[in-house]
Amino acid sequence: MRRILVIGIGTGHPDHLTLEAVRAIGDAQVIFVPTKGEDKAELADVRRSMIAQHGAPDARLVDFAVPRRQTDGVGYRQGVDRWHAAIADIHEQLFLDHLADGETGAFLVWGDPMLYDSTLRILERVRDGGRVAFEVSVLPGITSIQLLAARHRIPINDIGQPVTITPARRLSDIFPETAQAAVVMLDGEEAFLAVEDEETEIFWGAYLGLPQEITIAGRLGAVRATIVAARAEARARHGWIMDIYLLRAPARELTAQR
Amino acid sequence: MRRILVIGIGTGHPDHLTLEAVRAIGDAQVIFVPTKGEDKAELADVRRSMIAQHGAPDARLVDFAVPRRQTDGVGYRQGVDRWHAAIADIHEQLFLDHLADGETGAFLVWGDPMLYDSTLRILERVRDGGRVAFEVSVLPGITSIQLLAARHRIPINDIGQPVTITPARRLSDIFPETAQAAVVMLDGEEAFLAVEDEETEIFWGAYLGLPQEITIAGRLGAVRATIVAARAEARARHGWIMDIYLLRAPARELTAQR
Repeated sequence: MRRILVIGIGTGHPDHLTLEAVRAIGDAQVIFVPTKGEDKAELADVRRSMIAQHGAPDARLVDFAVPRRQTDGVGYRQGVDRWHAAIADIHEQLFLDHLADGETGAFLVWGDPMLYDSTLRILERVRDGGRVAFEVSVLPGITSIQLLAARHRIPINDIGQPVTITPARRLSDIFPETAQAAVVMLDGEEAFLAVEDEETEIFWGAYLGLPQEITIAGRLGAVRATIVAARAEARARHGWIMDIYLLRAPARELTAQR
Repeated sequence: MRRILVIGIGTGHPDHLTLEAVRAIGDAQVIFVPTKGEDKAELADVRRSMIAQHGAPDARLVDFAVPRRQTDGVGYRQGVDRWHAAIADIHEQLFLDHLADGETGAFLVWGDPMLYDSTLRILERVRDGGRVAFEVSVLPGITSIQLLAARHRIPINDIGQPVTITPARRLSDIFPETAQAAVVMLDGEEAFLAVEDEETEIFWGAYLGLPQEITIAGRLGAVRATIVAARAEARARHGWIMDIYLLRAPARELTAQR
């Protein structure tokens, strides 16, 4: 039986690896490394350096190109579905070509495999294909949510209250009506600009875990423009940006009475 | 200036410590250890063993008793407020008595300090009191949510969809109407029994990270009774239980079309 380790490696800070993840990277005989379409250069460097530091000296690194997701002429779900199918085909072939029966292969996943990551869904597709047998182990990793909260030194939930994690494209559907605290991820278009209440609190962070980390917090009315400017400036300087934020609706006393 | 490290230590598995947390435990000159009211015996043992393994040989361990939260005759918020005030007084005195200016003290927090933990709020109260100055650093740790997902080998979000983390007492307010995926924490009363739709999927776990870890998954109609029985049996055997679960509403295709 082949063994696949899906290892959460945090957001880029090498010391956010868990002891278990360090050991797992060292246990892998094969490490599958996406080379295209997925990564920013700094992140690819971080991953390479984690492998150099913790990988077994005789581990084989197997690069593979990640296809681009088709967005023209297909709905979001259908586009993702086809994209996952294409990646699953690639993974299946990788396992057949590069991982012998009884060997252990690893994928290093940014953050934690549980959140807005497709590795587990894709492996499920490969398994369903039935042409290669393997068992999967998942190792948790520190997410950008945790780092956002750590840097701002805040809990993400109000006392006794729920908190919702959402992709930016769903934010306007849920905040602030059904979710009074929302962590927004995968924001390509500054979804916080559409939040009207200037008293909303935002705790924003970009490049969390990397040396160029930035954090800004305050009421939207006070810091919205500052964040937009910082975001534009950083994106221009680094060529890419990845950010995340927590929004807290004001007047939470109302719901807190429950 | 005093320095306080708030270190997330995961849910009990010693290898879920991050490299950063290991180093931080070693950096602390004083480690503040709650001795009463907070911990199950096995968890206290895990923490002691982490300190023994990673703490500095000359680190001072300062035990303190955590008062009980008053629940009779006060609302939930008010009870928590008074409880935090009482703990803040204790912390203030601990810092004044046991941590010299320039020294580093540490609190080891189960899971991650960002989620359903009061350490950061209490430190804010101590700071507001103005009688002792200190700076705070927060180090993220693996949460039980991450371990739940890892053990079941699943993402917690549906593709492109939000996921809500909620204390059990708020579950019936939000699931499945406003949240179609909910991670339920702090459940003393089996809140999943009140979920009516038997097609709801549940991914349940107890004692995650500890040797006696249990996981069960399936449709509520199929596994509800199994979970209740496993929970009762385990609670009787170990004298305590701590569990967590993900609920997924069926017919998610409807919302997924967005």
